[in-house]
Amino acid sequence: MIIDCHGHYTTAPADLTTFREAQIAALKDPAQTPSRASLRIGDDQIRDSLEKAQLKLQRERGSDVTIFSPRASTMAHHIGTEATSLEWSQINNDLIARVVGLYPKNFVGVCMLPQSPGVAPANSARELERCVEELGFIGANLNPDPSGGHWTSPPLTDRHWYPLYEKLVELDVPAMVHVSSSCNPNFHATGAHYINADTTAFMQFIQGDLFKDFPTLRLIIPHGGGAVPYHWGRYRGLAQDMKRPPLAEHVMKNVYFDTCVYHQPGIDLLLKVIAVENILFGSEMVGAVRGIDPTTGQYYDDTKRYIDSSALSAQDKTRIFETNAYRVYPRLKARLAAAG
Amino acid sequence: MIIDCHGHYTTAPADLTTFREAQIAALKDPAQTPSRASLRIGDDQIRDSLEKAQLKLQRERGSDVTIFSPRASTMAHHIGTEATSLEWSQINNDLIARVVGLYPKNFVGVCMLPQSPGVAPANSARELERCVEELGFIGANLNPDPSGGHWTSPPLTDRHWYPLYEKLVELDVPAMVHVSSSCNPNFHATGAHYINADTTAFMQFIQGDLFKDFPTLRLIIPHGGGAVPYHWGRYRGLAQDMKRPPLAEHVMKNVYFDTCVYHQPGIDLLLKVIAVENILFGSEMVGAVRGIDPTTGQYYDDTKRYIDSSALSAQDKTRIFETNAYRVYPRLKARLAAAG
Repeated sequence: MIIDCHGHYTTAPADLTTFREAQIAALKDPAQTPSRASLRIGDDQIRDSLEKAQLKLQRERGSDVTIFSPRASTMAHHIGTEATSLEWSQINNDLIARVVGLYPKNFVGVCMLPQSPGVAPANSARELERCVEELGFIGANLNPDPSGGHWTSPPLTDRHWYPLYEKLVELDVPAMVHVSSSCNPNFHATGAHYINADTTAFMQFIQGDLFKDFPTLRLIIPHGGGAVPYHWGRYRGLAQDMKRPPLAEHVMKNVYFDTCVYHQPGIDLLLKVIAVENILFGSEMVGAVRGIDPTTGQYYDDTKRYIDSSALSAQDKTRIFETNAYRVYPRLKARLAAAG
Repeated sequence: MIIDCHGHYTTAPADLTTFREAQIAALKDPAQTPSRASLRIGDDQIRDSLEKAQLKLQRERGSDVTIFSPRASTMAHHIGTEATSLEWSQINNDLIARVVGLYPKNFVGVCMLPQSPGVAPANSARELERCVEELGFIGANLNPDPSGGHWTSPPLTDRHWYPLYEKLVELDVPAMVHVSSSCNPNFHATGAHYINADTTAFMQFIQGDLFKDFPTLRLIIPHGGGAVPYHWGRYRGLAQDMKRPPLAEHVMKNVYFDTCVYHQPGIDLLLKVIAVENILFGSEMVGAVRGIDPTTGQYYDDTKRYIDSSALSAQDKTRIFETNAYRVYPRLKARLAAAG
């Protein structure tokens, strides 16, 4: 069983974008407010959006199931108010639930949260609970910067975030730390903001004591952990200079990196410096990089190939492709069993 | 000849800090304004600050000369006004000139710039010129985020920065893209802000056309290029998806990475994916990470060891340790010749 922990619904039907555009236009002109009922996406549209994309690539690349969430870049928590984000989150999460309903063997749901700049993360707990308990989701995406590149929230180790962590722990689901698009022109979304957020979150965990307070909280840092594995010596050394405990104890009992690193040397480094138990297979397909690498003739984001080609033992590959995911997402096995 | 392109005066005498504290206090209480004449640092103090630190480490590690600039974290362009930054820059740059005067074989100067949030980079051109023409410096550190973690300036590819690039080109000196401390609690300075800035700058260069406008401009991205080599496939793929030219043409004729990556697997990755001609030896000692790696028994930041231990040919090692630097810093050779 090959489990891809990182997929977004980047190919959702265009009607979803049309609704969002109206929702945004209505922020200035309430007369344009779209009714939620006006958004009618048929099952065939959903099937069509997936059959030629994620499902085709699952078949071609040999993965079985994708842990699937709303498109990260369009979460855009910085747009509008908390009410805007709540409506947009519910629509997107409900759509993911329909995807999972249509293809329960291929997709398992993860939700986006109705975050909004300056709004207490506690307010996201209700939507998280709805998605897990009513829609059968197994995790959430948590945006450490709802301002979209202005970084106005407190660090993830601040008590500001604790009510949400309490709910994650209570429901026994992990969160992937994943920013959305950037409205700061300095930061290209997938080329800078995403990777910076990954790096930033990890350093916050070194500085703080989050996992003393939440020993069972599990957080996934996507995109191969940002810059962290490449600078693993820097992070070990900084923790040491700061008199923090070794990273294996202090952070790595609770933090996981995915394999969204789009070339063999990068994956080889990841597998060399990060313990196998902290690595989850992920590709983010169809996502940030869609082309074919001319140096290999293969898709950049076909990360399964890099792991297949690595020097890891078959047993370690199985941990990355499958069994680690059962530990990080305890609700996953039941979902797969229910799908048959 | 082993040339370390990345050293800061992190061990400057405590009197410098005392002056800065008074300068900052005076922002609220002008009665505390320190006179520049009150800052009297003797040659012996300077010698003492270096003999037990940078000079000792040069001898122990076998490097010959360090391209040396004011401490990056205390540039703190976000503090005070343009006048504050100008005074602080001149004091620091003059101090670097004294270091170079005392040890002309061991240090060559690079300046900090009197940047300030919202102030035109053109205003930094005069101090750059003074440092190069009067103090004999061979480059500058350019802060892409004078706001200290709020990222309020335009991207480095914006015309906002062009007057400074014009001066760099005219003087034929490179700039290292180097942020300072962060006043945004999300970003640890050396563990997040530095690395994020490196990654951010590189992605801006992919998006923009800066080197079409300045074909001879040379910029060094420190800390091994941030996250870029680890995600080299992502950057090649993003450039391709965005219909940008291949990175070798579009960015890598003008951009160089140093070797401030503090473990062997990171350096091995850097050397594997980035062309040798784009790599400059750097250690940032005495800097961000000061401890000994318990897994090797050696200093994390003794980056010369990692390059020595790499699979590169002797010729390629010489390019990284020495000859590439002559290309990037055309004024370096004359300085070394003058030092005898």
